[in-house]
Amino acid sequence: MNNPLKIGVLLAGNGVYDGSETHEAVLTLLALDRLGVQTVCLAPDVPQTHVINHLTGQEMPETRNVLVESARIARGNIKPLSLVVANELDGLAIPGGFGAAKNLTTWALAGPEGQIEPAVRDLLQALVRAGKPIAAVCIAPAVLALAFRGTGIQPKLTVGTTAAPSPYDIAATSAALEQAGAQTRQVGPTEVLVDDVNNIISSPCYMMENSISQVFEAIEKTMSKLVEMVSLAKSS
Amino acid sequence: MNNPLKIGVLLAGNGVYDGSETHEAVLTLLALDRLGVQTVCLAPDVPQTHVINHLTGQEMPETRNVLVESARIARGNIKPLSLVVANELDGLAIPGGFGAAKNLTTWALAGPEGQIEPAVRDLLQALVRAGKPIAAVCIAPAVLALAFRGTGIQPKLTVGTTAAPSPYDIAATSAALEQAGAQTRQVGPTEVLVDDVNNIISSPCYMMENSISQVFEAIEKTMSKLVEMVSLAKSS
Repeated sequence: MNNPLKIGVLLAGNGVYDGSETHEAVLTLLALDRLGVQTVCLAPDVPQTHVINHLTGQEMPETRNVLVESARIARGNIKPLSLVVANELDGLAIPGGFGAAKNLTTWALAGPEGQIEPAVRDLLQALVRAGKPIAAVCIAPAVLALAFRGTGIQPKLTVGTTAAPSPYDIAATSAALEQAGAQTRQVGPTEVLVDDVNNIISSPCYMMENSISQVFEAIEKTMSKLVEMVSLAKSS
Repeated sequence: MNNPLKIGVLLAGNGVYDGSETHEAVLTLLALDRLGVQTVCLAPDVPQTHVINHLTGQEMPETRNVLVESARIARGNIKPLSLVVANELDGLAIPGGFGAAKNLTTWALAGPEGQIEPAVRDLLQALVRAGKPIAAVCIAPAVLALAFRGTGIQPKLTVGTTAAPSPYDIAATSAALEQAGAQTRQVGPTEVLVDDVNNIISSPCYMMENSISQVFEAIEKTMSKLVEMVSLAKSS
């Protein structure tokens, strides 16, 4: 029997406003498990930028740790990012949520001039250079844009479309991704964009006004494509 | 167009060891949305019994609020339990996780002699007396056992089977539910038990050594049966 494919799931806390978007993270784990691959949850062992009361939207006067809060989604089965190297993984999935833009990077505060957690940058660069595919949904494409800023690699990414309702400014977000050096394309709310040059897949998920069923539809498409590309990369 | 059925989803925090089991909660919301019903997340506005570090399993020296943490799973779209009456709902789903046994009740500390949050007891009693169906997965059947202790109503519940691997003591848990006045039956890891007398559905989910895909299979069966029973109750 062959070893199953091993796909990392990079988490950034637990909750849409200060961590990984919980639905996107859980549905990513579900979709990958249904595709028969092994998942490995990862998160950086760093403090969260904010703790947001998800009932009121207000900042709470406390501190939480990204790895510890991500462990809630992983049911305790998670590794610190510093202990994982690209060699161990066949590919990577990054759910969205403000954690991608606040904890993995400072995109939410500084946009295309934002910083990226060095261990995140190093893992993403090593994966792409090894031809290992990465899927990023919702605002997680911003992590890829910052990871490759100034490297000559220009990932092709989507954060949705201006032609359907969104709670966010899709045109401004797309423009900011381009300022960071990425290429962008608009796709429909449950559609997937494939960057065949860099083996990157993206889909808007909760960047658009999607229901949880639509988010799962998009995540199933995204993860199917990821596993297809991972299988192809491994066999070539 | 008919109004959609309105199903409450009773949350107890966010994380398997001190709140609602995150996968079970998210997958309950997904399954109900795919069945075309409207979901209303609910949680009591009370302090959590514990805050557990999900990386180490150790208690953390801080306090969190059940409603505020549940709001992470609900993306902010949640009501305090005290503002919801049985009349507003057509049925209810209760995901598992230790929150059901620590925050909605004190089952984890006192078993069949445990206390139940009065607003939870009142809602569950009102729903059952109105013939409105309730689904409870994982350890959430313990909430139903305590809600009906001493009432003459004997819910028929499952927490799994001793014939397949489980991280918990299924025989002891079943015996404790019976001490609280419930009836119990064993069912397989992804099977569903239906109590036609009281309109209660239960399924073991993560009480057994299930994968996330198996948990989703069980939750889809459970929620399909719930919506079928809710539709029947509404039309009769």
